[in-house]
Amino acid sequence: MARWLVILAGGRGERFWPLSRMMHPKQFLTLMGNHSMIRTTRERVRSIIGPENTWVVTGKEYVEKVKTNLPDVPSSHILGEPVGRNTAPSITWAAASIYQRDRDAVILVLPSDHLIKYQKRFQKLADLALAASEERKGFYTFGILPTHAETGYGYIEHGAEVKQGILRVKRFVEKPPIEEAQLMVESGRFFWNSGMFAFRADEYLSAVERFIPDLFTGVNALMHDPYRTAGIFPELPQVSVDHGIMEKAQDVYVLPADIGWDDVGTFAALARHLPRNDEQNAARGHAIFVDSQNVTAITEGPVVSFIGVKDLFVVATKDAVLILSPDRSQDVRQVVQALKEGQHEHLL
Amino acid sequence: MARWLVILAGGRGERFWPLSRMMHPKQFLTLMGNHSMIRTTRERVRSIIGPENTWVVTGKEYVEKVKTNLPDVPSSHILGEPVGRNTAPSITWAAASIYQRDRDAVILVLPSDHLIKYQKRFQKLADLALAASEERKGFYTFGILPTHAETGYGYIEHGAEVKQGILRVKRFVEKPPIEEAQLMVESGRFFWNSGMFAFRADEYLSAVERFIPDLFTGVNALMHDPYRTAGIFPELPQVSVDHGIMEKAQDVYVLPADIGWDDVGTFAALARHLPRNDEQNAARGHAIFVDSQNVTAITEGPVVSFIGVKDLFVVATKDAVLILSPDRSQDVRQVVQALKEGQHEHLL
Repeated sequence: MARWLVILAGGRGERFWPLSRMMHPKQFLTLMGNHSMIRTTRERVRSIIGPENTWVVTGKEYVEKVKTNLPDVPSSHILGEPVGRNTAPSITWAAASIYQRDRDAVILVLPSDHLIKYQKRFQKLADLALAASEERKGFYTFGILPTHAETGYGYIEHGAEVKQGILRVKRFVEKPPIEEAQLMVESGRFFWNSGMFAFRADEYLSAVERFIPDLFTGVNALMHDPYRTAGIFPELPQVSVDHGIMEKAQDVYVLPADIGWDDVGTFAALARHLPRNDEQNAARGHAIFVDSQNVTAITEGPVVSFIGVKDLFVVATKDAVLILSPDRSQDVRQVVQALKEGQHEHLL
Repeated sequence: MARWLVILAGGRGERFWPLSRMMHPKQFLTLMGNHSMIRTTRERVRSIIGPENTWVVTGKEYVEKVKTNLPDVPSSHILGEPVGRNTAPSITWAAASIYQRDRDAVILVLPSDHLIKYQKRFQKLADLALAASEERKGFYTFGILPTHAETGYGYIEHGAEVKQGILRVKRFVEKPPIEEAQLMVESGRFFWNSGMFAFRADEYLSAVERFIPDLFTGVNALMHDPYRTAGIFPELPQVSVDHGIMEKAQDVYVLPADIGWDDVGTFAALARHLPRNDEQNAARGHAIFVDSQNVTAITEGPVVSFIGVKDLFVVATKDAVLILSPDRSQDVRQVVQALKEGQHEHLL
């Protein structure tokens, strides 16, 4: 019974433009530390699962980038999706590929572009979830204690503790309206769903067969005839693993995870993690601050200078500069949209 | 008796960094319209003085750039100074060179990096000043009606009108303190000194001989032995034509010049001349404004996008971005200084 890692790296995120580009999405960026997010994700579990037991599901166009970022992972373990069909097809494809090799496989699923501050704590929890998967049936999720009423996340309501550090899941709530989010956070009975999972491969595939039979059939066809990927994959049902499996399965558990987690979904989230000087300015790359406060600068090359400004977030690359109010980082897509409409796709 | 043009193009201005660079100062920038400022300056007087009668005094390192910008001007008319010694040495070198060829020369001196909005009016005034120089002795200046108490300019107090549109100069006041500037502006008896002049070459050179004899001697030596420029020029007295000649000469006149003049000394000045949309945003180059107001963007290439910001001035080039409060454009030199101290001269 071996442990396997599945990294989900299909993101085509536009919220980090112009740092991220169509051909260089967030999981390949070095937002924090010295390595790309996907490489940091892989390194994070080195003590638990080796690269030879790692699988990556990504966009077809990113396969080479994944190889470059994770040279230790076997090429045959990098699955390139011709189109994105949400997380259930990605995980099922990887789980079926692993199951083909290891009937007793337990799998840890990790998104490729999240930040986790407390590595040791996370390693302990991942180990606990994998051990639990080995010992008993069930799907194991990692719950983050909410810090605010975020409407962009899924929530997990927990029930009773079944074992030290493992609670039963009562229900999932996907992206609630703000009022509901506030009530949930205040109740103290909800976690954020971090999108990380542990389970046995056979149990997961049985759940797919039961709850999303079209997906099960489709992925079986993929396994038998990999050369037909381009034809089969786009026809798979587009559904998330949360909605398609976790919300319906029995024996779903949550591990409270105080691990300094952040999905770094926007520039504002990223800004929170950068060290600041006395004037609350932060820089990644070469920046010069003159009489400026609360400015965040991220530059991939150009020197960025500020004189007498405050409350700005700035991203500079060789061919695009983005300057925004820190509370508007959800709206980067508006600029991306304007570039598309102006037929400036070469900048995306 | 021919008319000659002398263009002063020695500026090494840092106030337009990062648009201007050490090797690409303001006079070579296309800040308005479609041509560099020096070329626009030359074209402005095409109806009065031809390129073959034009001389340019510039830094030695900019001689090739001047040739590229003004291909019609004879190469031998482009004088390259090994170091900048202020305006009196520049004008004297050019005046002596012209006088050598034309004992009856009248000369129009123009800075190479000023903006003049009303071309026709300026041409009429330049013609009037040159005609007056031909008819009678005297030095002719062009006075701009002040719009505010600017402390960075020289002021000219006018006396009686001696001829339609030509007033006697009572005195010059160089860069006054703010209180004095306010009093002068309110009095209605003062103009800004625009730094443009007309005079006879022989009369100018006589004035130099009388008021700055060292300069006269030095330039004579230059004329006799042009190969010694590198040795002689740095030894010339460093003095402005205003202070060295105009303030001391008799027969100095001022022509009131309502010509839409601006020396465009800072980004703020430049911002005043760009057309604005309903939200008071202005752009030169590719910019995208989302919910932003009173933003000026000048880009030499990168697309610059704004979301939810206001009151900014932004300059973007491939290797440097400057973001400043519009009221801080006098302080660009602080960034230039920081780059020097950080040994980033390659960005200057």
